[in-house]
Amino acid sequence: MARRNRQSRASSSRKKAPPKPKSAGAGANAIRLFDFEELARQRLPQMVYDYIAGGAGDEITLRRNRECFEAIRLKPRVLVDVSRLDTSLELFGQRLAFPILLAPTAYHKLVHPEGELATACGAAAAGATLVVSSFATTSLEDIARSATGALWFQLYIPADRSLTRDLIQRAEAAGCKALVVTVDTPVLGQREREMRGNFHLPPGMERVNLKGLGQRETELGHFELGGIYTPLLDASLTWKAIDWICSLAKTPVVLKGILSAEDAKLAAEHGAAGVIVSNHGARNLDTTPAAIEALPRVAEAVEGRIPVLMDGGIRRGTDVVKALGLGARAVLIGRPYLWGLAVDGASGVERVLKILFTELKAAMALCGRPTLASIDRSVLWPDR
Amino acid sequence: MARRNRQSRASSSRKKAPPKPKSAGAGANAIRLFDFEELARQRLPQMVYDYIAGGAGDEITLRRNRECFEAIRLKPRVLVDVSRLDTSLELFGQRLAFPILLAPTAYHKLVHPEGELATACGAAAAGATLVVSSFATTSLEDIARSATGALWFQLYIPADRSLTRDLIQRAEAAGCKALVVTVDTPVLGQREREMRGNFHLPPGMERVNLKGLGQRETELGHFELGGIYTPLLDASLTWKAIDWICSLAKTPVVLKGILSAEDAKLAAEHGAAGVIVSNHGARNLDTTPAAIEALPRVAEAVEGRIPVLMDGGIRRGTDVVKALGLGARAVLIGRPYLWGLAVDGASGVERVLKILFTELKAAMALCGRPTLASIDRSVLWPDR
Amino acid sequence: MARRNRQSRASSSRKKAPPKPKSAGAGANAIRLFDFEELARQRLPQMVYDYIAGGAGDEITLRRNRECFEAIRLKPRVLVDVSRLDTSLELFGQRLAFPILLAPTAYHKLVHPEGELATACGAAAAGATLVVSSFATTSLEDIARSATGALWFQLYIPADRSLTRDLIQRAEAAGCKALVVTVDTPVLGQREREMRGNFHLPPGMERVNLKGLGQRETELGHFELGGIYTPLLDASLTWKAIDWICSLAKTPVVLKGILSAEDAKLAAEHGAAGVIVSNHGARNLDTTPAAIEALPRVAEAVEGRIPVLMDGGIRRGTDVVKALGLGARAVLIGRPYLWGLAVDGASGVERVLKILFTELKAAMALCGRPTLASIDRSVLWPDR
Amino acid sequence: MARRNRQSRASSSRKKAPPKPKSAGAGANAIRLFDFEELARQRLPQMVYDYIAGGAGDEITLRRNRECFEAIRLKPRVLVDVSRLDTSLELFGQRLAFPILLAPTAYHKLVHPEGELATACGAAAAGATLVVSSFATTSLEDIARSATGALWFQLYIPADRSLTRDLIQRAEAAGCKALVVTVDTPVLGQREREMRGNFHLPPGMERVNLKGLGQRETELGHFELGGIYTPLLDASLTWKAIDWICSLAKTPVVLKGILSAEDAKLAAEHGAAGVIVSNHGARNLDTTPAAIEALPRVAEAVEGRIPVLMDGGIRRGTDVVKALGLGARAVLIGRPYLWGLAVDGASGVERVLKILFTELKAAMALCGRPTLASIDRSVLWPDR
Repeated sequence: MARRNRQSRASSSRKKAPPKPKSAGAGANAIRLFDFEELARQRLPQMVYDYIAGGAGDEITLRRNRECFEAIRLKPRVLVDVSRLDTSLELFGQRLAFPILLAPTAYHKLVHPEGELATACGAAAAGATLVVSSFATTSLEDIARSATGALWFQLYIPADRSLTRDLIQRAEAAGCKALVVTVDTPVLGQREREMRGNFHLPPGMERVNLKGLGQRETELGHFELGGIYTPLLDASLTWKAIDWICSLAKTPVVLKGILSAEDAKLAAEHGAAGVIVSNHGARNLDTTPAAIEALPRVAEAVEGRIPVLMDGGIRRGTDVVKALGLGARAVLIGRPYLWGLAVDGASGVERVLKILFTELKAAMALCGRPTLASIDRSVLWPDR
Repeated sequence: MARRNRQSRASSSRKKAPPKPKSAGAGANAIRLFDFEELARQRLPQMVYDYIAGGAGDEITLRRNRECFEAIRLKPRVLVDVSRLDTSLELFGQRLAFPILLAPTAYHKLVHPEGELATACGAAAAGATLVVSSFATTSLEDIARSATGALWFQLYIPADRSLTRDLIQRAEAAGCKALVVTVDTPVLGQREREMRGNFHLPPGMERVNLKGLGQRETELGHFELGGIYTPLLDASLTWKAIDWICSLAKTPVVLKGILSAEDAKLAAEHGAAGVIVSNHGARNLDTTPAAIEALPRVAEAVEGRIPVLMDGGIRRGTDVVKALGLGARAVLIGRPYLWGLAVDGASGVERVLKILFTELKAAMALCGRPTLASIDRSVLWPDR
Repeated sequence: MARRNRQSRASSSRKKAPPKPKSAGAGANAIRLFDFEELARQRLPQMVYDYIAGGAGDEITLRRNRECFEAIRLKPRVLVDVSRLDTSLELFGQRLAFPILLAPTAYHKLVHPEGELATACGAAAAGATLVVSSFATTSLEDIARSATGALWFQLYIPADRSLTRDLIQRAEAAGCKALVVTVDTPVLGQREREMRGNFHLPPGMERVNLKGLGQRETELGHFELGGIYTPLLDASLTWKAIDWICSLAKTPVVLKGILSAEDAKLAAEHGAAGVIVSNHGARNLDTTPAAIEALPRVAEAVEGRIPVLMDGGIRRGTDVVKALGLGARAVLIGRPYLWGLAVDGASGVERVLKILFTELKAAMALCGRPTLASIDRSVLWPDR
Repeated sequence: MARRNRQSRASSSRKKAPPKPKSAGAGANAIRLFDFEELARQRLPQMVYDYIAGGAGDEITLRRNRECFEAIRLKPRVLVDVSRLDTSLELFGQRLAFPILLAPTAYHKLVHPEGELATACGAAAAGATLVVSSFATTSLEDIARSATGALWFQLYIPADRSLTRDLIQRAEAAGCKALVVTVDTPVLGQREREMRGNFHLPPGMERVNLKGLGQRETELGHFELGGIYTPLLDASLTWKAIDWICSLAKTPVVLKGILSAEDAKLAAEHGAAGVIVSNHGARNLDTTPAAIEALPRVAEAVEGRIPVLMDGGIRRGTDVVKALGLGARAVLIGRPYLWGLAVDGASGVERVLKILFTELKAAMALCGRPTLASIDRSVLWPDR
């Protein structure tokens, strides 16, 4: 039923929907996440590739998100029994097979005709939780009906709060197990690849979960010279809105886009169930710290009261170990699964996740850390 | 009347004056200041491009002015109401709409046939103050008559002090609201792009405000082998000259070209109304610190007694926030508005300023700083 | 007898064995180890070149192994009598002419038809000790019969301990003077050049010392997606296995692959005769420290109780001096002698060693250190 | 008479001697020292260019000599009277017009047919002291007869001490005002560009001041594999030799090639009149510190007891100021004047010196330091 639904939807998109991708697809020889990036670059229209790949401003933070991971050194321990690895964890009452989630990203139908349904299918196949974006091109109910794996839902909060209330209720009704509230975007960032490429949604594609807000191509919110506000986002948002959402939600409320220790403390005080350390994939404010730089301060600030997650630059199993060593309970990936989606649909998403999971296991074994609990600061080579 | 005057002047310059540029000009698609740099490079004669772009010696400081801005990290705060931003400030009794001025730069007619009149027009359209250079190719009275926005006047002090006295009186009579005295140039820097390109003013273009000093093409002051002095500049200048100027001037005297804490203190003691931290656009002494590196020490040295401004490397709204976070009350841009002038005349200047202003607003919003007063050191990510 | 034996073996390999290389071979004009790398790159099949050259993951540690050596500065002393240099040392009861050994590396027949016999011949000609790999393509008895120089033997420990016991006994019976137990490889690293190049042993080439373990091409142990274990390696290995080997062995047991101070202390406590600081040529876990970064901590941790050796990135005589200055008693080279082997067989191996030895002597002379004992921390320029 | 002598010598060299170069020569448009480097590269035979340009090993120190100068920041002071600059100094009883000397370099006839005579002529025209190398291709008596400016003489000390005694007496008899003893070269460095280019002296060119030592092309001392010693240099040299030379010499004895504080102290204790901080132009031991890095420690160690000079990487007037700020009394240049010599003979040497002198004056003026005595540590921007 879910599959039929997906096919009928897909047939209305710009290309005829391909049959469900099999593992012998274009990404079958990809052996690392960067391979998917290159394959996606070759396949995607330039406008879409740039939309996904780009960062804010001069993309200094975009590069920094990677450079900082690369500069962190691991300290392997030897002669530890790593013949059995336990990568599982409990998070907000859910059991996860491994500490890697799919971060919310917009407009999957731009990337693949099956859109979010393919993403959810691939995530489920790999055993990972997908955080559905409120800018999805598929209705959250359709995704939930189709998905066999766990879903969370991400919220932007526009000025019209009734829309927010509706979305929360719809997400919870559809079975989403957590609400991720993006708090780092009172205005959109200076995303110049989008401006240059005249980014827009093609006819027939829309933010279906946000009906009532502007849907026209010209209303994507990329600010005109002089203006920085968009109706999609409420720039007057304060911690009071978080209080209101926490009072409304029955599922855990996770704040995404925290970088400072100060805001992390406030998040815990205002009832957030967790925080996601993130610079929005380097798409908002250029020259913020890399997410992995901000992580240890946030982790220290919350003192274990609530779980800390992070995203931004994860491309390798070693990156996951580093994030965990610096205080993250789990990480999220964004662009990498979109490359997978572009290359091979659901199978591509699944393969991306499995490669990363395999790398994580190898890294744990080579570090001499057989469980997630055994990964702490001591897995990192001290700076001095 | 101002417009007519401008047109008649323009008709006497090397090219026929174009009609007043409209926003559909060559820079209409430029979305960042660097775009104007590239467009200007394509349009300007090599000699002029190199004159503007070049720095002293090996251009180490030229690069450093940018690299240091890029390396500074911002610390965003979230869930602050940024739906209303106040970018205005009071400076030397003037109200500025935003903390960005146009630094004094020479010879605008080399860049565009309308020269300084176009610059003043663009600055006024954007609501910014222009600091007119004493090396302008338009008389300061003509600029003042034409300009609808605020002007300051910049002074070099040649050995002949009567000329200085005249200039101060002329500038004040013309309504300039502050005097900027450049103190970092007892001799000219080793500007090798100028030497190599045999930089000179074409026939019919001259430093009209400095009649009485050498005007011949060969007297631009670029030192011959063995000599370092030029009649345009008094290498024997000391703080006594500043005392004299302060006693003479009715408008605030601002010293431009301060880098050290020691000189900043002396400036305050000798009656300067403010200082501009600057390495002269990296055109004088190579391997000085970047201006943004010097800024915090100067700000600390003056302890708020007088306002500190800075120029050197500002290309992004985030740079403005960083400078303010490190103690500047306002910043000045130089090369960027010359690129704008080269590309689109007054409209180009205006667009450059508006882009930067828009970026500043976005940066303030994304940092969670709705007013200039709310921008302090805490907007910077601490180094350790 | 040894030579005949080598020839008969060689004739069974894929190319007809060339006559014993003479010094007028392809490497005769090579004047530094990097020259051999380039010559080898030109000569070897891509698959083999990549197998040797590659590192794990993004090869960050591979580059770091070199970068860290390059960044260390030496402090020369002048006017010391260096007309006589003594490069000899005593190690595990053996007298070595100089502190450079040949690290264990696999599959020499891939590199040269004469394989390990040529390596052993070149090592002996240069007066250096060869550590034979348990992944040799020649039986250790054949190597031992042929070799005129000293041999050590390297062990991987598979789950089947009887094989280990046999190997130890065979190695000692063949006259190997030390056992090197590789402890840093419970699972294989993410060696992507091998995956990409579909690395395999060609027909007729095998791990002859490990008969009984998988020999098929598809069993080289490079993990399939999802799996990280290989029958070649026992991922459950702990310090108990070291105790067992130490109780079994009559020759000194040296642990290879120690990076942390903690493991170095454990090694000394568990009876190891020495440790080799190594990140496995950057082939296992990417983003470990460079071996030379880890060395001083290991040396400090063992406090001279057992000798510390190191490998990873040695390409210059100055590198040897630096390693000795940071606490190593001797160093091992891997890739460089394989380049020599590829270029000129035994003569290439010999020339590589002699170039490095000559450079070591020149470096000792120019540092004013006439003996190995005179090389201590003071040979390094202090960081601050 | 000097000129005639030079011409007759020149006519015997491989090319017909050009007339004395005039300032309209190939270097007339060169405006910085790097220009001469490029012009020389175009003109010199590859072997000669490489001999001059090359450094030891991987040329890490060669690059570092420049990089460290580039990284040092100057702190300009403003509003200091710099209308009169005094660049003169007293050194070993001599009055120098400016603190820049010509370092000893070998084989000038390779670079220009007039060889050392042209160098001495250019140095004198610029008012600079030349340190004649004992590897000159012109006899020191001929140079002294021809030179109108001050000369010092540089000594290598071969095993045959009678030769040293003779050289000292000849140099003093010829009027050389100081003896520079090179102490950093017990063996030659690993100069691979020379090895690769098969560096040799062409027929008819020789080390005329060292008759009695090997003169054959094959005896240039570049070590064969395995050997590091050369008859040209006594590797057994100790401080006793310095005592002996100091007892012998009537002129000041300056030790060249000191990098460590320890050796600098010993130099002062053993009666050296001064030291030259140098890594031999990065031609001996690779990965030593840059000379400018070593300078402050040497200056601190000698505590002003004897003057400290330095060479290695000086290419800009700002570099001279930096060296003086870090404790040098004067600096020496090597390669730059050889580029000048290659391009324009005596005139090229003169122009190189004058460009550097002019840059020095501009740098002093822009730093607000009108005398050498006013240049101290405070001219440097503090690191933190």
